[in-house]
Parts: sequence; structure tokens; C-alpha cells
Amino acid sequence: MTKLISNELHPAAANGLLDRRAFVRGGAALAAAMSGYTLTRSVQAEPLEDAEWMRTIGPDVPGYGRPSPMEAHVEGTLVRRSWGGVGNRRTPHHLLNGTLTPSGLHFFIGHSGLPNIDPAEHKLLIHGLVRQPLVFTLESLARYPMQTRMGYVECGGNSAPLFSPEPIQDTVQALHGLASCSEWTGVMLSTLLEEAGIDPKAKWMIAEGAESIAHTRSVPVYKGLDDAMIALYQNGERIRPEQGYPMRLFLPGWEGNMNVKWLRRIELTESPGMTAAEIRSYADLLPNNDIMLFNFMNGVKSYITHPSPGYAMNGPGFYEISGIAYSGRGPIEKVRVSADGGRTWADAALQEPVLSKAFTRFRIPWQWDGGPAVLQSRAWDAAGHVQPERAEILAWRGQNPDVPRVTAFPSHHYNGPTSWAVSADGGVSHVYV
Amino acid sequence: MTKLISNELHPAAANGLLDRRAFVRGGAALAAAMSGYTLTRSVQAEPLEDAEWMRTIGPDVPGYGRPSPMEAHVEGTLVRRSWGGVGNRRTPHHLLNGTLTPSGLHFFIGHSGLPNIDPAEHKLLIHGLVRQPLVFTLESLARYPMQTRMGYVECGGNSAPLFSPEPIQDTVQALHGLASCSEWTGVMLSTLLEEAGIDPKAKWMIAEGAESIAHTRSVPVYKGLDDAMIALYQNGERIRPEQGYPMRLFLPGWEGNMNVKWLRRIELTESPGMTAAEIRSYADLLPNNDIMLFNFMNGVKSYITHPSPGYAMNGPGFYEISGIAYSGRGPIEKVRVSADGGRTWADAALQEPVLSKAFTRFRIPWQWDGGPAVLQSRAWDAAGHVQPERAEILAWRGQNPDVPRVTAFPSHHYNGPTSWAVSADGGVSHVYV
Repeated sequence: MTKLISNELHPAAANGLLDRRAFVRGGAALAAAMSGYTLTRSVQAEPLEDAEWMRTIGPDVPGYGRPSPMEAHVEGTLVRRSWGGVGNRRTPHHLLNGTLTPSGLHFFIGHSGLPNIDPAEHKLLIHGLVRQPLVFTLESLARYPMQTRMGYVECGGNSAPLFSPEPIQDTVQALHGLASCSEWTGVMLSTLLEEAGIDPKAKWMIAEGAESIAHTRSVPVYKGLDDAMIALYQNGERIRPEQGYPMRLFLPGWEGNMNVKWLRRIELTESPGMTAAEIRSYADLLPNNDIMLFNFMNGVKSYITHPSPGYAMNGPGFYEISGIAYSGRGPIEKVRVSADGGRTWADAALQEPVLSKAFTRFRIPWQWDGGPAVLQSRAWDAAGHVQPERAEILAWRGQNPDVPRVTAFPSHHYNGPTSWAVSADGGVSHVYV
Repeated sequence: MTKLISNELHPAAANGLLDRRAFVRGGAALAAAMSGYTLTRSVQAEPLEDAEWMRTIGPDVPGYGRPSPMEAHVEGTLVRRSWGGVGNRRTPHHLLNGTLTPSGLHFFIGHSGLPNIDPAEHKLLIHGLVRQPLVFTLESLARYPMQTRMGYVECGGNSAPLFSPEPIQDTVQALHGLASCSEWTGVMLSTLLEEAGIDPKAKWMIAEGAESIAHTRSVPVYKGLDDAMIALYQNGERIRPEQGYPMRLFLPGWEGNMNVKWLRRIELTESPGMTAAEIRSYADLLPNNDIMLFNFMNGVKSYITHPSPGYAMNGPGFYEISGIAYSGRGPIEKVRVSADGGRTWADAALQEPVLSKAFTRFRIPWQWDGGPAVLQSRAWDAAGHVQPERAEILAWRGQNPDVPRVTAFPSHHYNGPTSWAVSADGGVSHVYV
């Protein structure tokens, strides 16, 4: 260890966490620290033989590409409903890196499959308490000014397994895979609302989808006049069927199901619709039997994706700890990481650019000595909110013995820490500390 | 017109260009301008009937998603080589929006198909003038500190059709489709070079791919110590086969073929390798018969993607003009747009965040009066470079009568303007002005 920790590579917290600035000062110190000593897998040079794939011309290039066949295991896990069909698909954060979620792996929740919408026939109606009801086709929307922003969508039920009394042993995909981040491009809803002319009595917008169950949610008008978008493009191309092709409501930072997919109607009203989704599916029972409605936002959250369960640690030495942080209230301000279960903490590096209501990748170098460690992250947002302790959340919300089936309350808006225990054999497991 | 141009919606240049700040001041002025008058396609509200796709449960959700079947026409155009196989695939900029290119539509140039590389067997060798040659597996690289950045890749031959004496009538995909932008994540090459220990005599790095023709390019060591990356992830997932799975050299801002795909070797040397790619394929013949070698960078460039050939203008009224700008020398500083063939100009809005060596989406509102117009864009980068006039480029580089076959010099590094003529019937064609 003393060989590693030079003047340039300061320890930043106990159990091997190193100063995050090792990244930004250039690679020399870190490279020196790794050389031979730490990265035993960087073996001596050897002649490179031509591999099998160099002896032949490979398969031809398609007009629309796919991942390598060697990556077939990188899939969203599908959870099927009891009455058939896929109820949700979860993003495999432990197999990804960066800040974007590939469109093919964006999480999905839905109740009647993927409506095969003809974009030439689809219409969006804005009506109710407006001066002038309007109907938009995809062609008429294409003429409006557009905006582009990175933004995450997260299901209110993401992280629900953390309400379980015992830590559920599964991957970060199973625990936190109902959140994904994309680049969205579309027309600001405020532009359309102002064209329609809002009656001052209108306080709510009831948004309805064009799938067979016509999923419906009520959204306060102030969000429509703030940063709500009619999203038409996702990661550069038309949004995917799972995300609402040909258009969805995008409400940056607000829970997933309010971002109504396959959007066909926005009705301005005085009162919320009290739809099934808002008074049943996404309501929260509190320990005193009150029911909390219209809890639009998950709090500031973070979790470590590397290492995490399923990641095979391969002996002591250097590793990079990295993960994802985000807040529905704005940009992430700070992420701290602990390697000793929360006793000591070090600041992680945040990948620039740090964008409001988008995933932020955090990273910190770690010298694992081969002994037991418990890894944890904690995020702060620029609005001053901090990720709460698990005990704080349970005191307010109660505990759910039925998780992981997630059939009962409470099962929404968990944003406490996630703890990974690293054992001497390199295994990573989910623990509560 | 006077009805439209209120105090809040200033004209910014001749022929209908409006002030870009209509976007950022909130939608009220613009919405008012559009209401009824401009957007004749926003018809009166009508009852919404349940479409066919609302009467049935749709197809099930796959573990790895695809675009809607209704978007099958959004494909990279494939150019086949005379001896078989796809030589290149071009990005359909006119069908996309935002700043990212979907991974499936990233441009491709290659000469021996897609090597089906086993990531468990693939190795990267760094050797030659180093203190300690090193071999990396994908597993050993995974332990190094990573960085993430948005960045474009552009073929040196992109925009070659603009060397043609007559304007080639085709889409922006055919003219400029050999440039794409992704989020890349990987290990900074500087970290690996510093671990290997560079001999002071080493001035070049010879990078070699693992496809059957082992494409090879020489790169100055200074780029390796600057922002070069061994890219492992593209848009969040493992890089695609067309982009070099499982790893490529990523040299932000430098011409595509130097970003060696399927990377297997970097040899440090005193002199460049003078490989076929650098002394033949990507060399440039000048009018005085000198040959220009090692011209690494395309200059600052921009082009309008909406409207552009193939986009059906649907009557006079409001349209948004938008396009892409980028520079290999850093962030874009300014884009100006003309609607009268370059006589008058207005500043376009730049979509934030404006990132160095990444696509920047520019936009400007336009009130088309139904008369003839010639749309053009011109970009400046933060390093002070400006997109040159076409005549300046031809005076220096000459003209190529063989384009579009692009079999002769000059065919590289065109970065002049592109002009779209809008006719009274709404057709958009490619012109020189």
C-alpha cells in the first residue's frame, strides 16, 4: 500500500478510496500507481497472432445496425403479467456505462403491449378549458420550434425492492432498472398551450394515451408551462414504440407514468381526473393509513453500478467505483462514496457536463486491499436536497413485507442508499447497513 | 406579414428569418404569431375516435427494442463496393433531429465486413518505443478509470460531392452522411501510454485494426497524450460492430479512418508508417500536383438538415430551419443562417449544452412567404475559425469532375457551405450560389 499511495495519489477516505482528482491531473500518477503492482492482468507483451476473425471477410453491414451477437446477454429483463404479456422491462445498468441508456434497453412499463400506431393517422387534441381547441398531426407539429435535452425517466416504483425487510439478492437491474436516460427532442408544451389559450380556471391537464387501455394521468398546468415537452425524437430518431411512438408527454424529473406515452389528448380542467393510475396504482399508503396522492417526484437518488452484484472482482488492486446520480429538482451537486459502510466518505468525480434532470455518472478510484468492504453512495442536488438514510424513509413510509412482488403499499419513491458488500472472494452482495 | 411581426418577434434578416430569441423568451410571442394565421394545418378540434390500434392489445415487448415498423424507411443508405460487400453506410440527417446519432444509423466505412470478434479473446498490444510493452484484455481495461464524452466522427471524404462542378441533386444524407455523433466511454489513452512509459524518441503511434485487412494509420503521439480514448462504450452500451466492437481508437475531431476500429495494436515509432491509407486513400492532390499528407482534421462545418431535399414544404407560413454544426478544434461559437443566398444573415440559436468536438444543433424560426429562397448556414468555432466560401476551397484544392464517384482527388475535407433552394411549389434542391 505505501508503494501505491504517493504524494500525488492521496487516500480520500478509509478502506482504499483515492482522491478523485487523480483523473483530472492527468494520468501519470495513476498510471505509475497501477504499473505492474496493481494491474496484474496487464501481462507482458507477447506476439499478436491473427485471430480467426482476421482470416476472413466478416458479415455484411445492415442499413440499421444491431449490437454484436456476442452481446446478446445485454437485455432488459422482462417481467410478465399474470394475465400475459410483458408488464415491464428493466435497464441493465450493471452492463452499461456512460450516462445515456441505449434506446433498445430503455425501461418499459405498460399494460397492453405496443400499439402499432400509424403516424399519418395519429392526432393530438388539446381541448377543455382553452380559448381555441387544437388538433395536431405529426406533420403540423414538425413545423413548430423544437428543443433538445438530455433527461431521465424513472418509474415511481423504481427501487421498490428496497422496502423489503431483508435485502433482496439481485442485480442493480432488478433493484433500480426502472430508470433510463435519453436525449429527447420535441415541441415545448408551453408553445401549444399558449396557442390554444389557457382559461385562468384551468389548473390541471388530463393526459391520455392511445394504447387500448388509454392510460390517463392528471398533470398540474404549471408543469405544462414550465419544462414539459411533446417529445417526438429519442436519441436522434423517432421515439421508440416502448417510449410512446410517435409522441409522448415528457415531464422532466416527474414519475414515469405521468409522461403519458402514445399521447393523443390533453384536456385542461379545474380539477384532477382522479384516474385509476393516480388514486390506486401510484398512490402511497402511509403508516397512519393516510394515502398520499400526487407525489410527482422521486427524490435525489444515486446507486453504484460498478462494482455491483454480478460483477466478478478479480483479486485485490485498483478498481474504479462508478454509478449514476439524478434528481427531479435539478442538477446533481455532489456525490460522496464510502467503502466502509458509511463511516468515512470521499467526494466522487462527476462526469461533465452535469445536466439538470439527467443522469450524472460519478466515479472514484479505489484500491481494494482484498478485505471486506461495504460500498455506498450518497447524492446531493443543487436545490439542497440530500439522499435520505433508509431508516428515515421507513419511519415515514413504513416497510413492505410483500416486496419483491410489489403488490402492496408502500412501493414507490424509495430514494435511500444502496449498499454493496464486497467479500474476500470478490463476490458482491446487497446488504443493509 | 405585419400581423405576424410584432414587437416581440423581430425580423432578423431578409426573406423571413426571425429573431432566434423567440425560443428563449417563452412561447407566448411565437404562439401568438402562429395562431390560426401561420399554422393552417392546426385545424379545429374534432372528436377523437378510437383508432384501430386502440381496439386490440399490441405486440409484446422485446428484451432489446427496435424502432417502430412504420420507420423502416429510416435507414443508412448502403454503397456497395465493385467487388462486393458494403463499403459505406450514410447517416440520414434529414430524418433525424437532436444532436445524437442513433447507434444503428451511425455511418460506416470499411473494407472487409464486420469482424465477429470474441471479446474474451481480443487483446490490445502497446509496444515499440516504450519502457514496458503491455497487453490488455477487455477485462483488464475494465478496471481502469473511464471518461465519457459526446463526440462526432467524420470521414475525411464526407461532403466530397460538393467538389463536383455541378450541384449534385440528392439528400443531405448523400452529401454529408459520413458524419455521426455519439456518447463515447472508455479509458484515456494517455493513462495507458504513461503506464507503458514513452521513449522520448517516439513521435508517432501506428494503430492497427483486427479486421482482415488490418487497416492501419499513424497518429502523432501528442494526440495520444491529449484527448485520445480507447472507446469501449457507445451511447451507453458496448460499441457496435460497425464502430469497432469491442474497442476503437477515438480521436476527437480527427478524420474518421484514423479512429482505428477493432483496435488491436498501437506501436510507438520515430516516424509514421506511411501506410496505404495515409499515402493513398486519404492523401490529397493539390492543383500544383503536390500531395498533402497527414491532414488530420476537417475544418469547422455546418449544414441545414430541415428543410432539405426530400422535405416536403407544405405551403407558406412558419417553419423552423435547423441543422448541425461542428468543429474538430473545439466548441461551436456561432452559426449564422441566410434565407436569401448569403446576402443577409441572422444568428441561429445553439442548443445547449454546446460541447467541444460534438454536434451542435442550431435553429432559427422562419416565416416563408411562399416565394423563392436560398437557405445557407455558416459556422464559427471558438478557436476563431470560420467556414470558408466554396470558391476559397476550390481555389486552394481544385475541382473534381469525377465526383460523385469520388475515385479521384480532390475528394476530402470539404467544409464550405451548402445551399438549398426553396421553390414556390415547396420543392427543395441543391444549388451553388
